[in-house]
Amino acid sequence: MKILSSIKISDDLLERLLAIRPGAQIVQVRDFTEPDPEADVLLTYGWDIKEDTINLYPNLKWIQTLSAGVDMLPLNRLVSRGVMLTNVKGAHKIQMAEHVIWSILMLLRQGNTFVSQQEQKIFSAKPKISEMYGKSVCIVGAGTIGKEIAKRCGAFGMTVYGVSLHGGQDQAFEKIVPLEEMPGILAVSDVVVVVLPLTPETKELVNADFIHQMKDRALFINVARGQVVDEDALIEALKSKKIAAAALDVFRKEPLPEDSPFWELDNVFLTPHIGGRTVQTSERMWEVFQTNLAKYPDSGQMINIVDYRAGY
Amino acid sequence: MKILSSIKISDDLLERLLAIRPGAQIVQVRDFTEPDPEADVLLTYGWDIKEDTINLYPNLKWIQTLSAGVDMLPLNRLVSRGVMLTNVKGAHKIQMAEHVIWSILMLLRQGNTFVSQQEQKIFSAKPKISEMYGKSVCIVGAGTIGKEIAKRCGAFGMTVYGVSLHGGQDQAFEKIVPLEEMPGILAVSDVVVVVLPLTPETKELVNADFIHQMKDRALFINVARGQVVDEDALIEALKSKKIAAAALDVFRKEPLPEDSPFWELDNVFLTPHIGGRTVQTSERMWEVFQTNLAKYPDSGQMINIVDYRAGY
Repeated sequence: MKILSSIKISDDLLERLLAIRPGAQIVQVRDFTEPDPEADVLLTYGWDIKEDTINLYPNLKWIQTLSAGVDMLPLNRLVSRGVMLTNVKGAHKIQMAEHVIWSILMLLRQGNTFVSQQEQKIFSAKPKISEMYGKSVCIVGAGTIGKEIAKRCGAFGMTVYGVSLHGGQDQAFEKIVPLEEMPGILAVSDVVVVVLPLTPETKELVNADFIHQMKDRALFINVARGQVVDEDALIEALKSKKIAAAALDVFRKEPLPEDSPFWELDNVFLTPHIGGRTVQTSERMWEVFQTNLAKYPDSGQMINIVDYRAGY
Repeated sequence: MKILSSIKISDDLLERLLAIRPGAQIVQVRDFTEPDPEADVLLTYGWDIKEDTINLYPNLKWIQTLSAGVDMLPLNRLVSRGVMLTNVKGAHKIQMAEHVIWSILMLLRQGNTFVSQQEQKIFSAKPKISEMYGKSVCIVGAGTIGKEIAKRCGAFGMTVYGVSLHGGQDQAFEKIVPLEEMPGILAVSDVVVVVLPLTPETKELVNADFIHQMKDRALFINVARGQVVDEDALIEALKSKKIAAAALDVFRKEPLPEDSPFWELDNVFLTPHIGGRTVQTSERMWEVFQTNLAKYPDSGQMINIVDYRAGY
């Protein structure tokens, strides 16, 4: 078994991997540009797998990406070549949930203003603070991450609605509705959180129509992908105060260009794509790979196999 | 019945109060410096009741303070004159709990740094982010507010310990210990939150000894009163990094003087005594007074009567 990894593997980790799979060849590569007729497995963050990449590996059977979203991978090519793809869905759910609660509190409690006051040595309690308690939240994307967010919002006394592309129910939500019923939920939600995977179906789901359906002066939070949002429509809504404030962790173009209007808006809390990132993240991602490495090639026992039809 | 209020009462509110107590005289005053032989009740935020104040009101039977802490009131004088004191304990519990969770997230997620990056248009995910999940928290003060904090910490997957001056158990806590057993809990807690009322017993409870008992590089949060902490010892511990970081909402002297070392420390998240303050606070405080106004003078039916021996 030969594994090519474009992700740095520490000596410790290498030892653990070889203990799971004695005799495996694990080769660190800079990128995936050198042909290798033997490689069975690629290990990647996803961004370095292009349309042509897999032509270099005639023996390729499995790609493990240490990302949750797989939108950057050439999914159609992988399907037609019959390559299995696994991601690390679930490895970010705790991080993302904590980031979302933090984001909601930052907006409700005017966090940017209070930090700015501290920087200027101003001790003033004047900025108006609102509560999570008693408010309603609509979590667009009621999957693994959405549920973790829902549990925490519930503990704060929020009414929690979910929107799922494919319906379903879960006790962490007051109710989960399919996409067709989303407008009714958006109209009554004080906070809207987007945690959908990016697929052709979700691209620019948050457009002028979506925003129009939202309750006036609601809060908006995006921790999914920038492309799920029509940024021009969002900027317009933030300027007109249709949306009171937004917490944005992801953007159409990253790093966010210096001339992006988002930098200038005083009702935006902006973070640099850190929602899934904590000191525990790496460990949780490697655990997924280790689980799969132990079971490969028994796909019935492997976890996080991407459903190519759904796109995640 | 004659009520003197040094708190502004809107016309709406006045109407509601008179509906509860028809015929009552409700007089707005600037402060409590004019004698009034008829006044039965004083309505105050507490800070304007001095040792001599009650000499001006020979008929005084009840003071309702719209504060939770009563440490600023001349408790001994009230006892000896037989004046009943009610506070608004409980009216701040939701606000305080949300403030504490926000504070914990601000410290773990390097909130000040990310806001400062936003201000400078820096898009960098380098600052290291930690999680609430899996950490332990010690809530010193396991009363009404402490329980609300505990419930939310539990939803984040923290192990929640409580310290109570008088013991007791509650399901929101893994366990609650009395003051004598606090050192053992401090030694294993990643986060320490102080929400005790200020009494002679709790004054400078957080001193060099207390800090010494804490786990190295723990986080410290004070939303109680500045005087519960020996500020010099805390500043020392923050400088030496014995305590990794602190979120402080209350100070020995407020507003915090411009030359306070707290302004200069880069491991402090500093807020201007806003823990109990949201747009809902006023309504919740007036609800307590309305409940009591309806029942007065039946003290058996009134709520939030201060226990003078305990001091809260």
